[in-house]
Amino acid sequence: MTRHDLRAVTELRPVQIENNYLMHPEGSVLITVGNTKVICTATIEDKVPGFLRGQGKGWITAEYSMLPRATEQRTRRESSAGKVTGRTMEIQRLIGRALRAVVDLEALGEKTVWIDCDVIQADGGTRTASITGAFVAMTQAIAKMGTEKPFAKFPVTDYLAATSVGKLANIGAVLDLNYNEDSTAEVDMNVIMTGAGQFVELQGTGEEATFSRTELNELLDLGEAGIAQLINIQKDALGELAVLIGKVEA
Amino acid sequence: MTRHDLRAVTELRPVQIENNYLMHPEGSVLITVGNTKVICTATIEDKVPGFLRGQGKGWITAEYSMLPRATEQRTRRESSAGKVTGRTMEIQRLIGRALRAVVDLEALGEKTVWIDCDVIQADGGTRTASITGAFVAMTQAIAKMGTEKPFAKFPVTDYLAATSVGKLANIGAVLDLNYNEDSTAEVDMNVIMTGAGQFVELQGTGEEATFSRTELNELLDLGEAGIAQLINIQKDALGELAVLIGKVEA
Amino acid sequence: MTRHDLRAVTELRPVQIENNYLMHPEGSVLITVGNTKVICTATIEDKVPGFLRGQGKGWITAEYSMLPRATEQRTRRESSAGKVTGRTMEIQRLIGRALRAVVDLEALGEKTVWIDCDVIQADGGTRTASITGAFVAMTQAIAKMGTEKPFAKFPVTDYLAATSVGKLANIGAVLDLNYNEDSTAEVDMNVIMTGAGQFVELQGTGEEATFSRTELNELLDLGEAGIAQLINIQKDALGELAVLIGKVEA
Amino acid sequence: MTRHDLRAVTELRPVQIENNYLMHPEGSVLITVGNTKVICTATIEDKVPGFLRGQGKGWITAEYSMLPRATEQRTRRESSAGKVTGRTMEIQRLIGRALRAVVDLEALGEKTVWIDCDVIQADGGTRTASITGAFVAMTQAIAKMGTEKPFAKFPVTDYLAATSVGKLANIGAVLDLNYNEDSTAEVDMNVIMTGAGQFVELQGTGEEATFSRTELNELLDLGEAGIAQLINIQKDALGELAVLIGKVEA
Amino acid sequence: MTRHDLRAVTELRPVQIENNYLMHPEGSVLITVGNTKVICTATIEDKVPGFLRGQGKGWITAEYSMLPRATEQRTRRESSAGKVTGRTMEIQRLIGRALRAVVDLEALGEKTVWIDCDVIQADGGTRTASITGAFVAMTQAIAKMGTEKPFAKFPVTDYLAATSVGKLANIGAVLDLNYNEDSTAEVDMNVIMTGAGQFVELQGTGEEATFSRTELNELLDLGEAGIAQLINIQKDALGELAVLIGKVEA
Amino acid sequence: MTRHDLRAVTELRPVQIENNYLMHPEGSVLITVGNTKVICTATIEDKVPGFLRGQGKGWITAEYSMLPRATEQRTRRESSAGKVTGRTMEIQRLIGRALRAVVDLEALGEKTVWIDCDVIQADGGTRTASITGAFVAMTQAIAKMGTEKPFAKFPVTDYLAATSVGKLANIGAVLDLNYNEDSTAEVDMNVIMTGAGQFVELQGTGEEATFSRTELNELLDLGEAGIAQLINIQKDALGELAVLIGKVEA
Repeated sequence: MTRHDLRAVTELRPVQIENNYLMHPEGSVLITVGNTKVICTATIEDKVPGFLRGQGKGWITAEYSMLPRATEQRTRRESSAGKVTGRTMEIQRLIGRALRAVVDLEALGEKTVWIDCDVIQADGGTRTASITGAFVAMTQAIAKMGTEKPFAKFPVTDYLAATSVGKLANIGAVLDLNYNEDSTAEVDMNVIMTGAGQFVELQGTGEEATFSRTELNELLDLGEAGIAQLINIQKDALGELAVLIGKVEA
Repeated sequence: MTRHDLRAVTELRPVQIENNYLMHPEGSVLITVGNTKVICTATIEDKVPGFLRGQGKGWITAEYSMLPRATEQRTRRESSAGKVTGRTMEIQRLIGRALRAVVDLEALGEKTVWIDCDVIQADGGTRTASITGAFVAMTQAIAKMGTEKPFAKFPVTDYLAATSVGKLANIGAVLDLNYNEDSTAEVDMNVIMTGAGQFVELQGTGEEATFSRTELNELLDLGEAGIAQLINIQKDALGELAVLIGKVEA
Repeated sequence: MTRHDLRAVTELRPVQIENNYLMHPEGSVLITVGNTKVICTATIEDKVPGFLRGQGKGWITAEYSMLPRATEQRTRRESSAGKVTGRTMEIQRLIGRALRAVVDLEALGEKTVWIDCDVIQADGGTRTASITGAFVAMTQAIAKMGTEKPFAKFPVTDYLAATSVGKLANIGAVLDLNYNEDSTAEVDMNVIMTGAGQFVELQGTGEEATFSRTELNELLDLGEAGIAQLINIQKDALGELAVLIGKVEA
Repeated sequence: MTRHDLRAVTELRPVQIENNYLMHPEGSVLITVGNTKVICTATIEDKVPGFLRGQGKGWITAEYSMLPRATEQRTRRESSAGKVTGRTMEIQRLIGRALRAVVDLEALGEKTVWIDCDVIQADGGTRTASITGAFVAMTQAIAKMGTEKPFAKFPVTDYLAATSVGKLANIGAVLDLNYNEDSTAEVDMNVIMTGAGQFVELQGTGEEATFSRTELNELLDLGEAGIAQLINIQKDALGELAVLIGKVEA
Repeated sequence: MTRHDLRAVTELRPVQIENNYLMHPEGSVLITVGNTKVICTATIEDKVPGFLRGQGKGWITAEYSMLPRATEQRTRRESSAGKVTGRTMEIQRLIGRALRAVVDLEALGEKTVWIDCDVIQADGGTRTASITGAFVAMTQAIAKMGTEKPFAKFPVTDYLAATSVGKLANIGAVLDLNYNEDSTAEVDMNVIMTGAGQFVELQGTGEEATFSRTELNELLDLGEAGIAQLINIQKDALGELAVLIGKVEA
Repeated sequence: MTRHDLRAVTELRPVQIENNYLMHPEGSVLITVGNTKVICTATIEDKVPGFLRGQGKGWITAEYSMLPRATEQRTRRESSAGKVTGRTMEIQRLIGRALRAVVDLEALGEKTVWIDCDVIQADGGTRTASITGAFVAMTQAIAKMGTEKPFAKFPVTDYLAATSVGKLANIGAVLDLNYNEDSTAEVDMNVIMTGAGQFVELQGTGEEATFSRTELNELLDLGEAGIAQLINIQKDALGELAVLIGKVEA
């Protein structure tokens, strides 16, 4: 059997990252992964949350949302419902945690970077697209800070990208699931890795199913290859800013 | 004195309406008015609110939101705050009420049209851009209903568009205020009119200021002229659907 | 056809403003407009909202509510529902904005005037009655401030009153709609004006209907005449305080 | 020492109950106890809460609120705060429970009586004034039901009134505390009794103090005498409806 | 007739208080009263609520909750419901108020003692068990403060315990109602008393019933006897800390 | 370097599972893992969520909470805060999802099993202890259903247990982190596995750090060994019910 959109099991959907998408934010991109489209923005705030105050360190925090008709059926706005769903909270925490893994918070200084990921159109993989796009928006915003007051060490220490892998009935392990695949997958795993090929986060879930150690290894192989391609696309999107990643000025 | 963006006092900002902007909704547009950009979608729901049940009539309701970085300073998400602000509520009610004025709710039948207006980038006039864009998205969605089961009478009875007019110190009455103008205007008025040149809604506010009957008439003249231009742009955006507006099939 | 309560189309309902209605507030009135009764109080608070701090300016803010049985059917309390409805928010914002148009916020100094309008009995026109009554309560409260520490310039610069006008089927334009008229009106317009005959706010709404420029002018004529009468009643209610309005002490 | 308002320790404040105070509710009173003023309304709803459905029994439920400036300092609205305080909840539950003690819920049939007590002006004893006033409003509303469809047995089986007693330093036990007394009392007790002299509810609280069995008896003696006077005032307010209380028609 | 668990009408259920039940809190007990089990903890916080700041006085505040399956039917979590019920609020306020009656808040200094009562298993009398247990946890926590910085006067001035009494059909007045008795009692009364035999709080409620002065006296006699036994159990649980209660060091 | 509690890197903390801990729930355990203590209960509800209605399938859902003083510092109650934190939501979703992986929802029939995990004392690993304990409580509750109406196939198809593994500076990979270790770990991974040695969920997070594929494999080896020991303890706790797991009756 083949995938219903005819991709190879090792093939990402077409990915584009459009830079400086909006006029107001310090960093902003529109990331497109197949039919999934997410606007990611980065805002620099001149203070840190209470638990970090006075420690000379910065913070990265993220919020995630979907437009009501990003999905096939209209989803009720969380502002109308008066509360944020568990799914949204999980994703927000994941995005923030992942980005912090490649930022030297001391080099950043007492600033908060607010990441906002707003899904305009959803077709699977919105959280991984958000991370991949948010990395670029965040890097832009931090680079902009540096033009005003140069960093001794550039706070972004490495690339960071994310993708999903999963196990489909009759097909097996595949890379970058779209919504159709995601909703029927037996195993679904999000892989977040750095430019150096290290894991930052691994979340594998059997959906009313389970997976063996062998299957795990197959999925990780696919994920590693996909991440490497995504990081190349991020490099292109960053253009001349790419040289800053991991740079120690002194 | 001239306007800081050099427009004539009678001049709209450049307006574009991009049709079928998203893959999932029954109707969707991206409307651009100068630097203001709003995604408007229309969703058909197969039931009506409780107070209308069993009366053979439909309903139009609207929700409005801004991305956190649609604005120069980041705005806190209403979903995080856990409640919708008064400003948002006012705008939502206005959009729904305005659209209902040009829809024959009995011809629509027991359906609800959900309008979602999400501001991607804000530079003044987001509520009037939302109404102008939402009219096109709503018409598309209703036309799509008609392709499945033709209407005896097309429910959209006339065009509807909105713009703002205002009084600026040292300049006087102007059409279509951008954010810079809006935040310093002495008088701010939203005008919503039909294709037939009738008023649907008029909201004029002196911001810690007042206005005379003569000034009111000047503002209304500007508004009428602007609305006529906007309706022409809506016609172009609707293309062959334009013929349906006000049509009685029999 | 005549109005069902036999009033002329140009006739207000009987209006009374009872001063110093309550023992605790700095200013308080019971305003009666036909069967509509609203308690309006004014409270002076010795600070301003965050966005005004340190600017030497004051603020006027309003809250509005209805007793559950002010209406024919019992309305659920907003405190039980846990949130304020859109209608309430609109009205609160309108009352505050309107009053600010006749107050010199710098002359007021760094104080907030809290206006509370609580509808005891509703028969149409509760928001306009609230504004007309709140003006008197606010003036009393500010005058009381002045007895403790005289103002160089009295902060209330002019009178302010509000009424509704509308278009009824078979009757045409009428002044001061009661609930029965309001719920069947084709056009409903709130007019807020100053003692000098300037507009402060104009909100005209076609309820699933529209109105022409000619009809607009008819409605405005009625509104202007009604406002003038209401301001005379305010003057009587204020008694010797009336002389303070617009007064520059020096 | 004497009470600061010169009352005897056994003396109630002046009490008035104004009947049919509002036009819409089935029952409504304005009760005045000294400077405390409460509007009490009763609404008949044609259903019962879920836990009673289908049992042929009715229910009595109460809501209580204060206008923001009923008090010397402005109190924040519970609708703005988005939640009801513990104090309000306690009072609401108390009012409903007390009234149910003198209503035969089976004779009432599957109806809910909603009691709303809104304090217009507070000077101590608002919860007991609410109960005393609500009894009259409730009886009116139930009597009105009976004029439409006569009851085999009138559901209100006895009178019900409430007052406070307390222990003041240097004075000892007193009846009907005003705010000044209440806020300095060592012991505060609410007594709710029937026309037959039975207790319905007794809530005595030492405020950072305690009381002996002897003191308790002194307080109860005062309360019993006060209740008897309040019930006479209720009888006058009810007029010819007074004959219905406890009546078995057959 | 006899009680369904064969107790004498004057008999408490078996009571145990297990000290130092948890590792983290400054004070903690597991109190067992028959099948009712409550974990009570006391936390010392180094500040006081706003209304007490700078007065040199402390505060005692309490929170109460039940595990969802403390009850026979699962109770929805208040955190899921997003709000605390009226019953919970009443109990929380009662626990805090009662404990404050035996604490010299000036001797405590500017500290808040947070009491948390979490019902693990409920079989009637959870609020009175909470008070009896919380007294021990609070005393432990305050004694621990004293080991770090000795008090001139130990802030806990007397013992405090609580129990319920009630009137059962066919049996009459009984002490310490379990759930089965509580849910059918005609009268239910909570009695809170000190070691000196003074009342702190008395809450008697006729549940769709009433009670006479004679019945009240019978109930109070039972309550007094029960409280004396509970205080002996508290003394045993406190062990060598018992000597601190009411102690003036100097 | 050795672990601060002297355990081998491959050593679990002492684990006990106390069965039938509470009188009311259909299944209940107290699980102790070192100093971490969690009460897990299972409740059978005779219906399913809306999205499953009429499909002949059951559902497992979980709620998780901590007593305020389960932790070293008092944590604010989520019921007081009026909302559930993101951390709590993540854990609740994880517990439910994991348990569903070993339950045949069709064999269960149209029932919901509510799992409640309430942490009494926290010292790291509360979510994994919750899963391990909840498995036993759930199995008991389902077995009890079976005694009333035997299952054709017992719905619990395999064992399920969870533990944490992590990477500590200077020590490397370790099994079952306590709070002290967890808060300083460079990598933290939760492993959830079945009796058959399959993965159900894998969540590995670099905390401002990353991990290589080799390190991942080391962690998984430790986790697999720990899970096998936990499942043996579950078998002992279930006693004669153990034979039911995975049983097909026919």
